[in-house]
Amino acid sequence: MTHTFTLFTGGAAGAWRVTGVRTLCGDPLPETSRIAITHSTAMPSPHLSSWPLIGVASHARYVQKAERAALSARQLGLGRPEATSAALIPIAKSQAWWDLTQEERREIFETRSRHIAQSLAFMPAIQRQLYHCRDLGQPFDFLTWFEFAPTDAARFDDLVGHLRETEEWRYVTREIDLRLTRD
Amino acid sequence: MTHTFTLFTGGAAGAWRVTGVRTLCGDPLPETSRIAITHSTAMPSPHLSSWPLIGVASHARYVQKAERAALSARQLGLGRPEATSAALIPIAKSQAWWDLTQEERREIFETRSRHIAQSLAFMPAIQRQLYHCRDLGQPFDFLTWFEFAPTDAARFDDLVGHLRETEEWRYVTREIDLRLTRD
Repeated sequence: MTHTFTLFTGGAAGAWRVTGVRTLCGDPLPETSRIAITHSTAMPSPHLSSWPLIGVASHARYVQKAERAALSARQLGLGRPEATSAALIPIAKSQAWWDLTQEERREIFETRSRHIAQSLAFMPAIQRQLYHCRDLGQPFDFLTWFEFAPTDAARFDDLVGHLRETEEWRYVTREIDLRLTRD
Repeated sequence: MTHTFTLFTGGAAGAWRVTGVRTLCGDPLPETSRIAITHSTAMPSPHLSSWPLIGVASHARYVQKAERAALSARQLGLGRPEATSAALIPIAKSQAWWDLTQEERREIFETRSRHIAQSLAFMPAIQRQLYHCRDLGQPFDFLTWFEFAPTDAARFDDLVGHLRETEEWRYVTREIDLRLTRD
């Protein structure tokens, strides 16, 4: 498997038009009208504080075997013709989160916050891809990209609304919610 | 906390003189007489296949709470005056390893291979620092740096000998064992 960095570049170009931006906590991102998604096998630039945001589709950190099977069964992938709406949600978590052990994080993430179970309930309508960036020295720890049909936009609001009320979200120190439409 | 990349650069310069190199599996590294250890807040170079090897001292992936307490109690850190011997062991694991879930990896790593328990038994004489590099698109997944007094060299051989016999090590696809002396 070739290692691939995924880049989300804000600017005037790109297939995805930004229709809304909400900074939920922490510093905002520079304004942008469009986002281009590209891939690179090499780490693209030495030092980055905003665009492009860079992440890696890495191995699973929390999912257990039965959960993975359930997720796979509802996995349709990105790029469905009807999924012309998207959201890009970059997130950073506090040092307190990263100082927890894996078992403590899993306990909060799933046992108490039901992050996987809640996400599963909205699949296959809402498809997602998580990109890791904490180890890359990026300003965020994760970039999550969601795709759904415009008619499922309200359901997507329900999903992120639920997640933001969880114990897990108390560890979120920066979160920006960008909504997009594919032209 | 500022994000820091640690670089191990092979060449003619550097405080650590290479006294021996064994390629246990996979491709060897280019020969070098010395290794310099430096730090950078930015990802240093766009594409790298050998030197410098780059890693990040990231959050713990497998250690549980009691194990972390036991490790901390025996943690003396790097740079002890008497620890003039070192080993740098870059390792890559197979896709089969990364396709396992966290719980399956933990089961192999500790329950069956006793990676933490075995390492603990050799502390504080042998101190180590793990650097992650899988998400950086590097040729290795981990770089582990060990420091010990020359009189503990045989104990260090015991430690790595034990680990290489474990079930975990069946997933290792590339491993190089460099031994070094601080001038």
